[in-house]
Amino acid sequence: MNKPAKYDVLGIGNAIVDVIAPVEDDFLANNAITRASMTLIDEERADSLYDVFPPASETSGGSAANTIAGCASLGARTAYFGKIANDELGEAFAHDLRAAGATFVTRPLCDGPKTARCLIAVTPDAQRSMSTYLGASSLFGPSDLDPACIQDAAIIYMEGYLFDRDDAKAAFIQAAEIAAAAGRQTALTLSDLFCVERHRQAFLHLVRGHIDILFANEDEILALYETTDLDSALAQVRADCGFAAITRGAKGSILLSAGQVETIAAEPVDKIIDTTGAGDLYAAGVLYGLSRALSLAECGRIGSIAAAEIISHYGARAQTSLKLLAGD
Amino acid sequence: MNKPAKYDVLGIGNAIVDVIAPVEDDFLANNAITRASMTLIDEERADSLYDVFPPASETSGGSAANTIAGCASLGARTAYFGKIANDELGEAFAHDLRAAGATFVTRPLCDGPKTARCLIAVTPDAQRSMSTYLGASSLFGPSDLDPACIQDAAIIYMEGYLFDRDDAKAAFIQAAEIAAAAGRQTALTLSDLFCVERHRQAFLHLVRGHIDILFANEDEILALYETTDLDSALAQVRADCGFAAITRGAKGSILLSAGQVETIAAEPVDKIIDTTGAGDLYAAGVLYGLSRALSLAECGRIGSIAAAEIISHYGARAQTSLKLLAGD
Repeated sequence: MNKPAKYDVLGIGNAIVDVIAPVEDDFLANNAITRASMTLIDEERADSLYDVFPPASETSGGSAANTIAGCASLGARTAYFGKIANDELGEAFAHDLRAAGATFVTRPLCDGPKTARCLIAVTPDAQRSMSTYLGASSLFGPSDLDPACIQDAAIIYMEGYLFDRDDAKAAFIQAAEIAAAAGRQTALTLSDLFCVERHRQAFLHLVRGHIDILFANEDEILALYETTDLDSALAQVRADCGFAAITRGAKGSILLSAGQVETIAAEPVDKIIDTTGAGDLYAAGVLYGLSRALSLAECGRIGSIAAAEIISHYGARAQTSLKLLAGD
Repeated sequence: MNKPAKYDVLGIGNAIVDVIAPVEDDFLANNAITRASMTLIDEERADSLYDVFPPASETSGGSAANTIAGCASLGARTAYFGKIANDELGEAFAHDLRAAGATFVTRPLCDGPKTARCLIAVTPDAQRSMSTYLGASSLFGPSDLDPACIQDAAIIYMEGYLFDRDDAKAAFIQAAEIAAAAGRQTALTLSDLFCVERHRQAFLHLVRGHIDILFANEDEILALYETTDLDSALAQVRADCGFAAITRGAKGSILLSAGQVETIAAEPVDKIIDTTGAGDLYAAGVLYGLSRALSLAECGRIGSIAAAEIISHYGARAQTSLKLLAGD
């Protein structure tokens, strides 16, 4: 039997500050931004895109970090690994995670690239199109893992975006191995349709051999199994993973575990402002529920509530206590 | 006759980035924050307060800068003077003003304090309590004035907060003199009840001798004239200034000019989230209206619309085109 975990969830991901601005639809085409997805950009492009960006706000982001902040807001004990620089945005990133209640100890980078930033253009339909300069976050590697912390976490949660870099991928695999050896659970989110297409074989290998809990949206799970039939994809993920949660936007979500399927409606929202972080916060709710050994239906319900809070304003961090919202 | 102005409004103020977080009511008392006002703090207090601050967002702020960004969003030609440092928050401040359409050329400070930041704690009643570390902005002085730019602006708009520092006050008076000599109009906002009480005599002297257009809320105008009777205060401000606009929160506003009084209802808002910037954006609407020689009623209406947009979300910069909202 495992010793009791010190953390309910440990997240590993790209430590990114979001620079968010509302834009008109033609802004995307005029600036060659791929709609509704995440595109990696270099520093030069980040600077030139920022020059034409409308007035913006800076809010801590990063997919797994958003999830960890959400878990913490729900009341879970959390920790996070990710690389910031020794600059003002890095300071804000660390502050916001710690203020949410997460343990964050990754050593900041000195004398290298700046803290990562993601320029998020939000169109009037609330869809977000992301251009990410990875900066310091791209220098996260195996040496940034703290094995004791991994062994102390009930669930290790990692974002698929890490697969875009070999060093981060190596860290990812190593963390999964340490977790498995300690009898801990591993969780993965597929992150992005194009990310799945870039790394399909590696993801399939990982999901089949190393992942206990999988998060994906409908497009991503269909792309992973190269099918257009959701039932077929669900049957396959069920064979591959002990637990999966598939989000379907306004159509809600489907949770699967051995012998169980649960369909959850989306939580109603007065006005959807910005969908940034919807999947991240849904995952937060489900992970929180798993950490409390709640039913599939309860996990899905809390995920939907957390996602509804996030899409009702700009930014991917909660503006109200998720614990109070979830009534848990 | 004056030559045509290149700018409709030139703002001068403290260049500040807002760090905004929702808090519970007891957070103010627990951290010795004065409710609903602006308190100046030093760097040490800024650091220790940030340490206990909840997860936050960074948005460009500064009272006069908010007004200028609002004027620009309405379609006015604008410029701004204020001192940032050569750091990431300073870069964001400059970006956001320029992206709004304002001309901003004040030389950033090198090797000095950081860009100013205002820690804004927003309680559930949407009231904001502000703790401001002036940093680089406090080094704005007469040498940062560009006389040609002042001579080229139809209205010079200044915030009362500048009176908290002698150098800024000297710059303020000098700018007003340059403007008057060039036949331009000068505008002032009283900024804050406590600011009025700190500088009552200086404000009275200024209003009587140098100011054409005065903005204040009800508390501030009562404090300026040391009365509890609004009618008496209105009669006095009318004798002192050519034009005054007095805001009254949910009760709307009163605009006064020679021979005219106009009472304007507040624009309805579904849910008030954060009142930061309400007065700044009201002033933006009125200044825009003045720049287009609109009626008192139209000036007040546009001010109310701009204020309503700002209080419906966190932060004091518009998240939608004010020009479209105002239908102008």
